[in-house]
Amino acid sequence: MSSLVYEFPLNEKCRNYLRLNELLQQVHHCRTLNASGQATALFKALLDTLELLERCDIRTDLAKDLEAQRGKLDAWAQVPGVDAEALHQLEQQLAQLSQQLPRAARLGQLLREDKLLAAVRSRFAIPGGLCPFDVPQLHYWLHLPAVRQQEDIDGWLAQLQLLQQGLALLLTLWREAGHFRPEQAANGFFQDNAELTEMIRLRLPAEQPLYPVVSGNKYRFTIRFLPVGNHEPGNIDFELANIR
Amino acid sequence: MSSLVYEFPLNEKCRNYLRLNELLQQVHHCRTLNASGQATALFKALLDTLELLERCDIRTDLAKDLEAQRGKLDAWAQVPGVDAEALHQLEQQLAQLSQQLPRAARLGQLLREDKLLAAVRSRFAIPGGLCPFDVPQLHYWLHLPAVRQQEDIDGWLAQLQLLQQGLALLLTLWREAGHFRPEQAANGFFQDNAELTEMIRLRLPAEQPLYPVVSGNKYRFTIRFLPVGNHEPGNIDFELANIR
Repeated sequence: MSSLVYEFPLNEKCRNYLRLNELLQQVHHCRTLNASGQATALFKALLDTLELLERCDIRTDLAKDLEAQRGKLDAWAQVPGVDAEALHQLEQQLAQLSQQLPRAARLGQLLREDKLLAAVRSRFAIPGGLCPFDVPQLHYWLHLPAVRQQEDIDGWLAQLQLLQQGLALLLTLWREAGHFRPEQAANGFFQDNAELTEMIRLRLPAEQPLYPVVSGNKYRFTIRFLPVGNHEPGNIDFELANIR
Repeated sequence: MSSLVYEFPLNEKCRNYLRLNELLQQVHHCRTLNASGQATALFKALLDTLELLERCDIRTDLAKDLEAQRGKLDAWAQVPGVDAEALHQLEQQLAQLSQQLPRAARLGQLLREDKLLAAVRSRFAIPGGLCPFDVPQLHYWLHLPAVRQQEDIDGWLAQLQLLQQGLALLLTLWREAGHFRPEQAANGFFQDNAELTEMIRLRLPAEQPLYPVVSGNKYRFTIRFLPVGNHEPGNIDFELANIR
């Protein structure tokens, strides 16, 4: 039985982490432009990333959170039988990223200066605004040899690499540290304290015709399971992990 | 040597035709959700289509233009050696579409009532707004078995089928009727009369590092070739077709 995990951030910082991580994954998956629609998805993810980076500078927060993870490694080093080599590598990676991030140029600055991205950005929100007659330079670019397109895309991705690595590592460590425990939502409703929790993760069977909606802040959160269709949700067994 | 065709509409009606046609092609190409990013591209194309259809009701114009094409077929019937069977089929197709279009329900009405599309639409413009925590019902839907997703997508596409068929047929006939003639843009600049022209089509070698920008109205149009890079455009040979 396959299961489905939902993640809900409980503060603004974590919301930005998850959004940016999702977008950078989309950029990564679409970067080869192998299939129809991937150019649209790639540009949407790149432009959304730029927009988010303009609203919030997450370098300092991310560096701090990575540094905090590094602190936690010391406890692991005492555990008998731990893979000392792997631990050492992880520690180095965390140290490197948390040092480089605050020193890096403002993230995405060079992307904002890219002419093609600027042209696409100016028309993206217009319905059908990426038509060849709207952005002829995009039509030209989309018909360049793949190797030329990849040069441009690699250049764009290089600008976001540090951010992507830092976010991916932090979220992996966060997710691995949060253990699922069984819970039940009576009549589809559940609430709990959120103290010190960055985000919560919910796991439930993929086949169940319902989805969770969460509202919360740093003190407490509520989960409401909404049915897909007209049935009553009833009591719902699910698994919950608090990510601290 | 491969060539690249650019199309520029010279009136609002034709601009909407080309936009909608481009969007419906995108919907069609992404409908199987076989590759990363195709869900994003599919939703963007569907939502943009809905938005355009809310702003303009093209049923009447499209029916009229299809009917006009039907009138032109009579001339073809007189040509010796013409494929009478093919001509008859085309005539029937045009008659059917131009009758059905004005009678159809307002295009896209049922799409606007779709709950999932409405949820996606409400968050689409937010940077990273399609994250699982923003639209959990989309996260749920994206993990349904492919066959269930296809049922929904087929239902959405069925709503747009008449429009898609009508536009594709009209634009094919328009494009086939417009013959390319050689022209030269002195110092990258060209202008001409636009009388009765719906759109112009430009053909030029794909390798040339430049792209055309057109401004025009129903009386006249100008083409300016802009270089990709820092060189001067110089005199540019290209081919031009007026679509009437």
